[in-house]
Parts: sequence; C-alpha cells; structure tokens
Amino acid sequence: MFGMMQDRPLVVSMLLERMEGRFRGKEIVTAQADGVMRATFGDVADRVRRLVTVLDGLGVPADARVGTFGWNTQRHLELYVAVPSSGRVLHTINHRLFAEQLTFIVNDAADDVLFIDRSLLPIVWPLMKSFTTVRQIVVMDDGDSAEIPDDPRVRDYETLVADAEPANDQMFAVHDERSAASLCYTSGTTGQPKGVLYDHRSIILHALMLQTADAFGLGESDTIMPVVPMFHVNAWGLPYAALMCGAQLVMPGTATAPAELLGQIEQHSVTFTAAVTTVWRGALQHLGGHDLTSLRHIVCGGGAVPLSLSRAYDEAIGQPLRNAWGMTETSPVVTCAYLPPRTQLSREDARDLLAHPGVALPLTQLRVVGSDGKVVARDGKSTGELQAAGATIAAAYFGQSGPSASSSFTDDGWLRTGDVATIGPDGQLRIVDRTKDLIKSGGEWISSVELENEIMGHGDVVEAAVIAVPDDKWGERPLACVVAAPGTMLSPELIRQHLAGRVAKWWVPEQVLIVDEIPKTATGKFSKVALRDSVLGLDAT
Amino acid sequence: MFGMMQDRPLVVSMLLERMEGRFRGKEIVTAQADGVMRATFGDVADRVRRLVTVLDGLGVPADARVGTFGWNTQRHLELYVAVPSSGRVLHTINHRLFAEQLTFIVNDAADDVLFIDRSLLPIVWPLMKSFTTVRQIVVMDDGDSAEIPDDPRVRDYETLVADAEPANDQMFAVHDERSAASLCYTSGTTGQPKGVLYDHRSIILHALMLQTADAFGLGESDTIMPVVPMFHVNAWGLPYAALMCGAQLVMPGTATAPAELLGQIEQHSVTFTAAVTTVWRGALQHLGGHDLTSLRHIVCGGGAVPLSLSRAYDEAIGQPLRNAWGMTETSPVVTCAYLPPRTQLSREDARDLLAHPGVALPLTQLRVVGSDGKVVARDGKSTGELQAAGATIAAAYFGQSGPSASSSFTDDGWLRTGDVATIGPDGQLRIVDRTKDLIKSGGEWISSVELENEIMGHGDVVEAAVIAVPDDKWGERPLACVVAAPGTMLSPELIRQHLAGRVAKWWVPEQVLIVDEIPKTATGKFSKVALRDSVLGLDAT
Repeated sequence: MFGMMQDRPLVVSMLLERMEGRFRGKEIVTAQADGVMRATFGDVADRVRRLVTVLDGLGVPADARVGTFGWNTQRHLELYVAVPSSGRVLHTINHRLFAEQLTFIVNDAADDVLFIDRSLLPIVWPLMKSFTTVRQIVVMDDGDSAEIPDDPRVRDYETLVADAEPANDQMFAVHDERSAASLCYTSGTTGQPKGVLYDHRSIILHALMLQTADAFGLGESDTIMPVVPMFHVNAWGLPYAALMCGAQLVMPGTATAPAELLGQIEQHSVTFTAAVTTVWRGALQHLGGHDLTSLRHIVCGGGAVPLSLSRAYDEAIGQPLRNAWGMTETSPVVTCAYLPPRTQLSREDARDLLAHPGVALPLTQLRVVGSDGKVVARDGKSTGELQAAGATIAAAYFGQSGPSASSSFTDDGWLRTGDVATIGPDGQLRIVDRTKDLIKSGGEWISSVELENEIMGHGDVVEAAVIAVPDDKWGERPLACVVAAPGTMLSPELIRQHLAGRVAKWWVPEQVLIVDEIPKTATGKFSKVALRDSVLGLDAT
Repeated sequence: MFGMMQDRPLVVSMLLERMEGRFRGKEIVTAQADGVMRATFGDVADRVRRLVTVLDGLGVPADARVGTFGWNTQRHLELYVAVPSSGRVLHTINHRLFAEQLTFIVNDAADDVLFIDRSLLPIVWPLMKSFTTVRQIVVMDDGDSAEIPDDPRVRDYETLVADAEPANDQMFAVHDERSAASLCYTSGTTGQPKGVLYDHRSIILHALMLQTADAFGLGESDTIMPVVPMFHVNAWGLPYAALMCGAQLVMPGTATAPAELLGQIEQHSVTFTAAVTTVWRGALQHLGGHDLTSLRHIVCGGGAVPLSLSRAYDEAIGQPLRNAWGMTETSPVVTCAYLPPRTQLSREDARDLLAHPGVALPLTQLRVVGSDGKVVARDGKSTGELQAAGATIAAAYFGQSGPSASSSFTDDGWLRTGDVATIGPDGQLRIVDRTKDLIKSGGEWISSVELENEIMGHGDVVEAAVIAVPDDKWGERPLACVVAAPGTMLSPELIRQHLAGRVAKWWVPEQVLIVDEIPKTATGKFSKVALRDSVLGLDAT
C-alpha cells in the first residue's frame, strides 16, 4: 500500500521559489578584481532563468555536462542553480590540477561547453585543443585583464544573459529527483581522478541536513562566506543551503589571500565560514588587525584540526576551529564537530573535541570494519576502515556500471572511505589515519596523523607531515618533515624531545627533516605522494 | 542521466540505528497512574524489534492497518516505530470522538488489530461489536483500574513483548519510501472524517525539517514534551524528530491537567513543548507555582494565539507563546512563528509576530488564490484561499482514487486548506479565517478570527467565538459568544465598548452572548458547528 502524499521531487529548481519569494531581498556579495559585485537573490533568480534559456540557445544537449572553471562568485552560483534545473549536469573543475589531469577530466566528463572566469583563461585556453568534446567557451569577465581569444567559439556570459528570455517553470526539466545534477572529480592523490555524480535528491537532502540545529544550524540570520572552492564538492554544500534558508552570501572570488578573507568577514559581518586548515593557518598572523566578532562558527576541514591552531583562534577572537569530515564521495559533509549537551568541559577540552570530526548527520550512517570484515565495537578504541552509507553518499563512480566495478564500495553498498577510524559510544568519529598512510613498524601500527598533530603542537612548528620509510630492521619507520616558524631555531633534536612523553617511545621518528614547505594537493591537503617522491626519490604507490 | 548516489530510502526504521547507536542512553519518561515509567532509547529500540515480531505472531497481514487508542506514552512511541517499520500502517485514533465516528473510522480504515491503553477500554470495548474488521485487541496496562475483558481476543502488551524475539534488520519490510506508514483522520467538523495516509518519506522529511535552525531547531540538547496528543497528526511530528536528533522525551500520559503538565516541565527540565491554545490558557493560573526556566520554546497551535495570553506567559516566565500552522493533511507543520533576523522589534511587537503562523518550512510551498482562480500578490493584504504543496502534504484522502475525487485538491495537485489567508513580502502567513467562517455583511467580509482575537484581548474574557447569523438587511451579521473570567462583571455593552476603535464600526456585533463555555472539537478547537447548532438551533452546513 502506498501513501497518499504529493509527488514532489527534491530538485534543485525548488530553490528558485525561495529565492524569488521570501528571500528575494537577500544579498550576495562577490569580490572582484575591479570592485565588488552585488545582487539580491531575486536578481540572481532572474539571471538563473535567463541562463537556462542561454543553455538551450547554445544547443547544449538535454543531459550534457556543463564544465565550469570558476572562483567563488555570483556567476558560479547562478550556474549552480541553472545548469541542474535545466536538466543538464554541472561539472565543476579544479583549475589547480595539472594540465594532463584537466584534459583527462574534461574529456572523461565529455563536457559540451565550458564556463570560464576570465582570470582562468590563461590556464584553460591553451588546453582547448586537447579537449575532444568541448564545442564552446563562455567567458565570465571577473575584471581580470587576461586576453579573451578572438575565436568564434568564445562567447561572453553577460551578453548571453542579457539577450536571453527568462525561462518559466515549465522549462525546468527535472521530474525525477534521482536525475544527475552535478559532477565533481576526486583530487586523485593516486591514479586518475574519478568522477562523483550527485543527484538532485542528494543535493537537497544535504542542504537540509546542514540547517539542522546540531549540524551547522544554518539559517536566515547567517551570512555565509564559503572559502572552500566552489569547484570542490559544491563548496561543501554551503551555497545550496544558503539559498534554501535565506542566509546572505559573501563570495571571495579571487580575493583569497588571508588578509583579504579577514577583511571581507569584517566588512560584511560574516557569521559562518569554512575552509581547509592551510587557509586558517595562513590567516592566523593577521587576526589582530580585524574585528571578527560577527563570526559564530568557523569550519576547518580537509583533515585534522591542529589543537594549537584552534587554541590560537579561540584566544585571539573567541572562536575555536570546528572540524567536519567528508569526502568528494559524500556530498561532502557526513560529520561535524559537536559538543554533546549537558557535559561540563574545560575550554581546552571543548576545543579538543571541536577539533575532531564529530558525529554523523541525520540520514547518514557510519561503521568501522575490522580486517576480519566485521563491524567493530563503538568503544572509541577499536579501529578499522571507516565506511559510510546514506542517500547523500556515492554508490559508484561516474562511468562505472555499478559498485562492483570498484573496490571503493562494499558488496552491501557502503562506501569504503580509505580512512582508518574509531567511533565512540557517543558517536564521535576519530580519524586515525588514511589506510595507506599508516606506518607498520615492528608489526605494530603507528599513526602518521597522530604524530603530525603532536609535532604541530610545538609552538615553533608551522606544519608537519609524517611518512613511512622502509627500514631493514622494523619494516617501516616514520619520517617527519617539519616547517619551522620564521626566526625560530628548531632542530630535529628539539622535535624528538617534544615528542618524548607525548607518544610511545618507539613512535618517535629517528629522521626529522626541517623543510621549507610541505607539498600540497590541489585542494590544499598535504600531498604524501609528492612528499614521498621528493624525500625518497621514488614513485610512491 | 541518473546520478550515482546510494539508493537509501527514507523510512521510519532508519531511526532505529540512531536509537541504538549514538542515542541509546537518551531517556523517555512517561507519567502513569501508578508512577513514572522510564526507559532509554536503547530499551525502546529493543522493544520495537520485539513488537515487530509480535505483529507477525498475531498474524497481522503484511500491509494491514494497526489501530491505536492511546495517550502520549512510551508504548505508543514503540508502536510509532514498530508498526511502520514492519510494513504495516499505524492508525492513531482520537478517543474523544463520538462513538459513531469511532466506529466509522475503525471500519473505514479496516483495522486488523487495536492497541488500547487500559484506561481507554471503557470507551473502546463497548464498540467492539460494531467493528467489522478487528480480530484482536492488545491492552497496554497504564496502571488504570479499568476491567480487562475476559475474552480470547484480548492480549496483554507486556506479555507479548516479553515473549517475542527481537526482529533483525532484514525483517524491516519497507524498501520504497512512498509506502504507507501511518493514517490519521481529520477531526471532521463537517461531514464524515477523512483519512490522511502518510508515507515513510513524508515522516522522515518532516522530522528533518523540524530540526532546522529556523523551524523548531530541535536537537540533542532538548527535552521535548509533546502535549499535543499522539493520536493527532503524529503529535505534530515531535516523537519522530526527537528520535532522529536524540532529544529526550517526556510523555504526559494521562497526567494532562494543567498543574500536572507544569509539574512535569519543572521536574524533567523540559525545553520544548507544544499544545493547543486551550491547554496554555488553562495552565496560565498555575504558572506562579513552578520553576519553568528550562523552557526555551512553547508552541501554541490549533488556531491563532491570543496576544493577551502570550503576553501573560512572557511576563510570568519570560517565554511568549509561538504559533505554528498546519493541518492533518500537512503532516502537520508547514509554518512556524518566526522573528526575522536583523529587525528591531519591541517586546510587544515580537510577541505579536510570534503569535502568528510565521513562515513556510523548507520543502513546503504556500500560495493564496483569489476568487478568480489567480495567485494573489504577496503583499500582506490580498486575501484568498490558502493552498499548500510539498512532499509532506496530502495529494488525496485514504480510499479515494486520486485528487480529482475531492474538491480539497486543485487540478495542479495543491491542497486547498479551506483557510482564508494573506502572505507578506517576507513570507509571513496570516490566517484571516476559515473559508466557511467568514461573515459577509452588506457585501463586505468580516473576519471572525480577528473579532475573536480583539475580544479575547479584553482582560476579563477567557474565551470568545464569533459566528455568522442571518440578517434580513445585511445578509449576515457577526454574533459573539464570550466566556467571562470568574468573578468579573462582563456585559455585552462592555464588549462593544472594548471593540469600538479597535475594529471597523460596522464589525461590532449587535449580539454578544455571555456563555459558560465554548463547545470544542475533539482536538480542542472551537467547534463553530456545535456553536451554530446551539445558538441558532439549526444544522450548520
């Protein structure tokens, strides 16, 4: 027997009703090279409707992929809504990848048209001849001075939008919420990047989950600044959540230098912002010069939050950093840092708890599976591979026929995250390590993440990464690469003294290298692959 | 092209994972005649699993309706989860209806088995012979002394649960989220009651919406006491939301007298509670005797909130009453009272705004349609019939083949609510009246709701209801029935003086009756039908 509720699919175009109704006066502010671009949600909705017509006019096939090379901007937001609403697939592309990867991704997705910020033309245009499916380019002029190619395939965004008629509701083509809405490739630390194809349902459910009180609690009183790029897993879903709940949006555009970000928080009274650790570490030294009292929540993702960094924020501006956990494959937010109610924690203990991934959002499930294939106890101690399930979690990669085509999914349809983790009785997730980053020394595991966190707790350390190096006696031993703060006198011996008593004696690395910087992936995470290459002079696998 | 996210239906049984995992230690407390019943969510989950087996053991067919006659209790909560998870349909029944209505409802739903609180046996058992489909009765012993019939069809809840094996996950039979989960009949102020058949999807989406920051913002830090009955639209969805977010639950059972309710709020540090206006009016005189500082949110639904009552609460305990709007057909919450951010309101203006329905939740849509069939402007002035759409809103009534079978739904699938309303530019909904309660005097409309609110603003008035009476000259004129506070000297003339200057002169009713009480429907709302019957001595239609 079926229920008798209305058949209303969860689709991206439903956001338009809120943008045009209750929230039509809300503002989105974008920093541009030539000044600030401002618009209301009502304006954006009108441009979204025109953009749907533009896609038709360009002859983009019904469910084609529409690639974007863009910063966090209003125009990118318009594409976020228009492309899926038109029935096509928004394919956001990370312009920081290597040229070969960009070519692979555009061709693998078979993008029909690319929307490109003018400032990114110098990266993308030279690759045009390597793209096998791209018919047209639409340039979004962000005030940069990059030359716009004189080529019949190149169109201007603003001209197209101005000349187009707004689409009506009947032109929003999606009636099945399982239809593909957007596509994002994993950053691919090993092997070729793999595409994750989100459906409309997962985008709407994820936006709703971010608004729940115990998640990010996003609402109309917020002003959200997504620093996390819009080419990276839908900017963690924040733009869609903002449009649904009527939060104002501040888009940093190309103004992503630490002082510029802080200036925008101050100028626009941002309440909620999110970025990877590297960004917050870079901004630390600039905190003093800004009034940041509007902030209520700073998400620090993409890895563990160094407690020392969070403490520095808390002491400087009264806001600790709050971790969240997710992956490209998980929409991405699955857990967010969380202080359980009715518990008495010292400020330091609270900061420590908030520096960890936290608990699973409604509609998502996590389990930790041991090497014997059995789910381990939720005791905060038993480790194993973290696996995830839910309507916001991938079942397969783009272009694969099903879960069985990949070792990333279990037989019963859960995502294998590749993280080693524990879950506590209260649901608190702790990431112990990446499966491939664990160090096996003398038959026992050493957590590179834990070692890194302890080393980064030293006041003179800016960053630290630990990798495994082959060892004749122990099999593997940890090697630490450490970036020292300017003007300090850090030495390997000081690091080893710092670690003594903080970790087991046999965890202390014999080899500590003081280096200028830790190589990063295109999404700002430590690149263990590149680090192994440069330190060991061999290809890591 | 379809997305590649996991196929995870939104079904009631997904709540078990949270009850058994992260929230297993959360408590539910039930007031019983013979003392307090306490259990953890983990205990409840175990009993839910046994209850699924019990339903199988009783031979209840795969998608049969399971009727309940119950107060707000832990056992009723167990049925809320177990019955839908087993694939069957939970049919909650309002025991305050007339005998003929109860018989109609049970037979219309074709209930296979009834679960009945012992204290309600005297109401239900005498009707047993009129029930054509009920094969068995399961008695939930709530400590009452009502005689339990010595009959082979009568079983004991606790014995059945204790003797059953817990069901495993494979026994949760629902794989399509559009499957029917529960059934509730409208209170039927006119005509026969009509059943609304909720699906699993609507229950889960509704529970999620209640957790959003700008709705009720329910979370783990809450202790929720649903006073609104569990037989009435899933107790406004609060039990399901509580299980999803880990809020503790306080169930008043039969202890629904005002002083008892306040005592439970104080004893269990309730943070969130919800009831109809009548309950809060009754509790007003007892506020002084209790420490109610734990409360953060009091929902007052089932009609407009009298501003004078809200003011009295705010002055006594620092919490105004907050309105919400919905119907049996809408799961039920569609709007909740809301203060827009960044506005400076006086305390009185804020109370006034919170006394109104507020704004639509995410995933729901409202529109006001004029008599010409066109959607009216969102200007806060243009009135028309309120219509609703969304995945949590009914498309048809139980037993009907489709929307076209009823005038309650539009051709394009929206619910016609029967309320006359305006929507403001900021999305704020105002209910002007029920379509059938408007008074047409001299060709102009008079709002009975507005008149009632003004009259109830008089300090000596306890309750007031306004109906239309035929008038030779004007067509219709308003007639007010007013209940005076004990010991006051209220007169029709004093009411008319109070209204002068507060409403248009021609709105002031010539006829004002001072009465002992206003007749109520089974859900505590003013029964205009019964009032017309008694005042006019004729059958209202």
